[in-house]
Amino acid sequence: MTLRQSRRRDWLPILSWAKAYRGETFANDALAAVIVTIMLIPQSLAYALLAGLPPQVGLYASILPLVAYAIFGTSRTLAVGPVAVVSLLTAAAVGQVAEQGTAGYLAAAIMLAVLSGTFLVLMGLFRLGFLANFLSHPVISGFITASGLIIAASQLKHIFGVDADGENLFLLLTSLARHISDLNLPTLMIGAGSTAFLFWVRKGLAPFLTAIGMDEKAAGMVAKAGPVLAVAVTIGLTAWLRLDAQGVAIVGEVEGSLPPLSVPRFDLALVKALIGPAILISIIGFVESISVAQTLAAKRRQRIDPDQELIALGAANLASGFSSGYPVTGGFARSAVNYDAGAETPAAGAYTAIGIGLAALFMTPLLTYLPKATLAATIIVAVLSLVDLKAVRETVRYSKSDGAAMIATILVTLGFGVEAGVVTGVALSLFLFLLKTSRPHMAIVGLVPGTEHFRNTDRHDVVTGTKVITLRVDESLYFANARGLEDAVYDLVAQNPSVRHFVLMCPAVNSIDASALESLEALNARLRDSEVTFHLSEVKGPVMDGLKRSRFMENLTGEVFLSQFSALRKLDPEIVVQHVSSVPNTLGGVSAEPPVKAV
Amino acid sequence: MTLRQSRRRDWLPILSWAKAYRGETFANDALAAVIVTIMLIPQSLAYALLAGLPPQVGLYASILPLVAYAIFGTSRTLAVGPVAVVSLLTAAAVGQVAEQGTAGYLAAAIMLAVLSGTFLVLMGLFRLGFLANFLSHPVISGFITASGLIIAASQLKHIFGVDADGENLFLLLTSLARHISDLNLPTLMIGAGSTAFLFWVRKGLAPFLTAIGMDEKAAGMVAKAGPVLAVAVTIGLTAWLRLDAQGVAIVGEVEGSLPPLSVPRFDLALVKALIGPAILISIIGFVESISVAQTLAAKRRQRIDPDQELIALGAANLASGFSSGYPVTGGFARSAVNYDAGAETPAAGAYTAIGIGLAALFMTPLLTYLPKATLAATIIVAVLSLVDLKAVRETVRYSKSDGAAMIATILVTLGFGVEAGVVTGVALSLFLFLLKTSRPHMAIVGLVPGTEHFRNTDRHDVVTGTKVITLRVDESLYFANARGLEDAVYDLVAQNPSVRHFVLMCPAVNSIDASALESLEALNARLRDSEVTFHLSEVKGPVMDGLKRSRFMENLTGEVFLSQFSALRKLDPEIVVQHVSSVPNTLGGVSAEPPVKAV
Repeated sequence: MTLRQSRRRDWLPILSWAKAYRGETFANDALAAVIVTIMLIPQSLAYALLAGLPPQVGLYASILPLVAYAIFGTSRTLAVGPVAVVSLLTAAAVGQVAEQGTAGYLAAAIMLAVLSGTFLVLMGLFRLGFLANFLSHPVISGFITASGLIIAASQLKHIFGVDADGENLFLLLTSLARHISDLNLPTLMIGAGSTAFLFWVRKGLAPFLTAIGMDEKAAGMVAKAGPVLAVAVTIGLTAWLRLDAQGVAIVGEVEGSLPPLSVPRFDLALVKALIGPAILISIIGFVESISVAQTLAAKRRQRIDPDQELIALGAANLASGFSSGYPVTGGFARSAVNYDAGAETPAAGAYTAIGIGLAALFMTPLLTYLPKATLAATIIVAVLSLVDLKAVRETVRYSKSDGAAMIATILVTLGFGVEAGVVTGVALSLFLFLLKTSRPHMAIVGLVPGTEHFRNTDRHDVVTGTKVITLRVDESLYFANARGLEDAVYDLVAQNPSVRHFVLMCPAVNSIDASALESLEALNARLRDSEVTFHLSEVKGPVMDGLKRSRFMENLTGEVFLSQFSALRKLDPEIVVQHVSSVPNTLGGVSAEPPVKAV
Repeated sequence: MTLRQSRRRDWLPILSWAKAYRGETFANDALAAVIVTIMLIPQSLAYALLAGLPPQVGLYASILPLVAYAIFGTSRTLAVGPVAVVSLLTAAAVGQVAEQGTAGYLAAAIMLAVLSGTFLVLMGLFRLGFLANFLSHPVISGFITASGLIIAASQLKHIFGVDADGENLFLLLTSLARHISDLNLPTLMIGAGSTAFLFWVRKGLAPFLTAIGMDEKAAGMVAKAGPVLAVAVTIGLTAWLRLDAQGVAIVGEVEGSLPPLSVPRFDLALVKALIGPAILISIIGFVESISVAQTLAAKRRQRIDPDQELIALGAANLASGFSSGYPVTGGFARSAVNYDAGAETPAAGAYTAIGIGLAALFMTPLLTYLPKATLAATIIVAVLSLVDLKAVRETVRYSKSDGAAMIATILVTLGFGVEAGVVTGVALSLFLFLLKTSRPHMAIVGLVPGTEHFRNTDRHDVVTGTKVITLRVDESLYFANARGLEDAVYDLVAQNPSVRHFVLMCPAVNSIDASALESLEALNARLRDSEVTFHLSEVKGPVMDGLKRSRFMENLTGEVFLSQFSALRKLDPEIVVQHVSSVPNTLGGVSAEPPVKAV
């Protein structure tokens, strides 16, 4: 049983599952692919709209990326493609450099996918997947909640059939309010109707189907097909009543084709403008994707290699960029559906790609009359499920600093946009972590009478003498808290002129860096100037190894005690005799000098 | 005996010492003031030259700032004034916005002092002194070493009497090499002679004086006056031989006066350009000053209030800015001299101010023939003592990450300048700290036969079963390491299909943030999916309090054990019976369930 053995890296996971591929597996994968394809078609169109791109680009981004992931990915069930948050980030980034609806806008989105793919592959090659860990859960959760609200707000204009625009939630809503008098009634009826229908499908259809006797799993699957029904019905209505002539915005004519290959033109200015957003999209996308992959893998005791996942997601984005798509990642909803539908290998993704490819080739004429309001309704219903305000309350209750980071992320995202929100959240959570470790919990401890245990004098009824002060620090010692420790010790010694021995008790000190070592040396020297002897107790093995490599041990005026009890027995024997006399000698002999803690 | 009791803040420390001021104290303070004054005069002139300012500005910066510090400072012996590193930083900052020798240059230096003073006072009012803790010792030490090298190199042109300029060490030295053929022989003789003399004074004079019978302390004092002797002799030689006519650069005529009051004109563009450097100067200056103050205070068991020190240094800089001076801080050398000379109260600083004031009024005519080469020699000898390359080797030996931060700081400072150096050092040391805590030490532990202790299976001969895995994590759990813990656990469980219980042993976990809590919840859920029960052991009191506030405890599939031994006794009793049967029941009964660790 060993921990973190270095594993042979598996660059092409496809080789390990493809050779055992059997007919039964094919049947399961193919069924899952059909179900996911039905779910993905409206979703891909909708997210392309959210990204400000022509709807077929959403289909393009759901073909080759799936094949690339099937070859390189380590998850058996992850489904990649356009997702809501990445689409929003794409719209924000590309909107900075090009006007929506222009060829430049599409070219920039393609470039964004290529940059993001390149960055992800590089991160994977250099094994930098751990960088994503610096996004804390509260920051991610706050960011997704705020993004969900912004996305929903940005789609309201399609529901009302008005023009509205804004860079943050406030501007979006006021712009909407200013234009609300232009609202188009047929659009509103389609939009509001679709939204209500989809909410009902999500909340009420599956229970209803189960109630009339359908298998629970099958009922869940059927409910996922709700958006397809909404799309079909509203296309039919719009075409039949020619609602487009009455102001209902429709997708319009789209030429059916497989994704055209695109070789992005290298444009240095464009690269410079998009590299920052590409990095952000890569990291956010990676975090979303790896979370889903790990959740699903754990259920079947499979494992995910985060660094290989970076390469797989990078390959998926490069594939997207070279086939006229835009940034993609592994999505929550579609992966769960893929898993529930019984997908066993990444081949299911490849079959889904075939399904979407057929749709791109033959179904686009059918989409001509698809109202944008229907797509907006699909988006709104999907993203509002991401909004989790309850999590804010729970996080605040558990930890004030985590809650602060989360609320800051939400407010800054809503007020200043998605990029500022993430950057603020990450910076704040790192700063608060550093702040916390820079102000460690410290306690003056005393002997619990009749035992060999030591406790905080502020909280327990313990015995202390006037000759010895023992301070316990509950944190690794490093540059940010070293000076605070010095200050605390100087204050203590200045306030207690009768003190002769100072003991630093280190059972929770996991490391001591060079700054803290200098502080300990300074403490030793300054305490010597004050005629106080400096001791350590309960120092961990690896920390002790480090101290022995330095000159600290040579100059230490006092000793390093294995246990705090042995320190007190040596430095203030009277207290020990007076308060622990009831403990039998044999026991005292056994546990007063426990071996140094394990390394 | 209490820790960190909230103290009444003492806004005017002068009130606490002035009322007990007696004649004897005055005598001691006055003597110290005379000695410091003699030392400060050449130093102030030299540092002004280093900052690119007229020499008398160095004197101006050594008058009112000392009075301000005497009123607001909490150190009894700190001596403020111009120092080498801050002078270099001033030259770098002001050189960006004005041409040396112009009125704009002086105005910018004055503005820098005002900005720095304002920033320091604000930091003090908001109690932000702890921010300086994020500068680690290796970064400060590396920065000072590199600054010392740059300063020394920048003064070589004065020693050789040539023109040379460069933004980094490499450019400085190549520029010097290009101009070396223009060297002025009389200048070189004065410069090299002064340098050699001052090095001898520093290294050889005090031992020599002690050898011929002088008191050791007095010998040290006399040696500090070496620069004054060098200044006097070279002034005499230059005036007598009219060396200035032979190309020796001299200070020239300076009108004797008290520092002219200056009210800096508020210029928004200038403020914007200087605010960054002002913040950097403030923090570097504060770190230098507080280190000296604490070292000296500890020797007499006095205490320093860091937040009040910020206010005092801020007041000193404001005083400098409003009296035609430039940024100041507490200096190493002068404070040590002040202390050794017997200064008892900050009044010694005020008396020094009077001494320097008299010098500014009456001595400036004497400085006309002072060769710049002599001042450069003073600077070189002073700053080379700050260069500590041995510390680099020791730091690398103690800790690779600290060594890396130190070397990066030195190289970037030498190659790209002082500001880039500090920023790189701080960013790198924070990143390396986060990286270290994001990859905590983890160990699978087993039972040491015949005891109740648990050790790392990789290092010790311990007993483990196949039913229970126990993982010990030696770090607080937070967002940056939560996912790594999850990965490690999933891998372990995937590799050991026979496992039924997983125990996370937490004796060194000082906190669990919201992200780590979510990871623990995810672990619990995923282990449940794998039919493995999840337990914790040896959780600290405050961490347990937090867990109880969350829903984690409701969903936990296993238990929280007070000790790892009690966990094993419950989960795999056979191993305990087999390997600890020799331990008597009574002892086992006492220590198998130690109380929860103190809070």
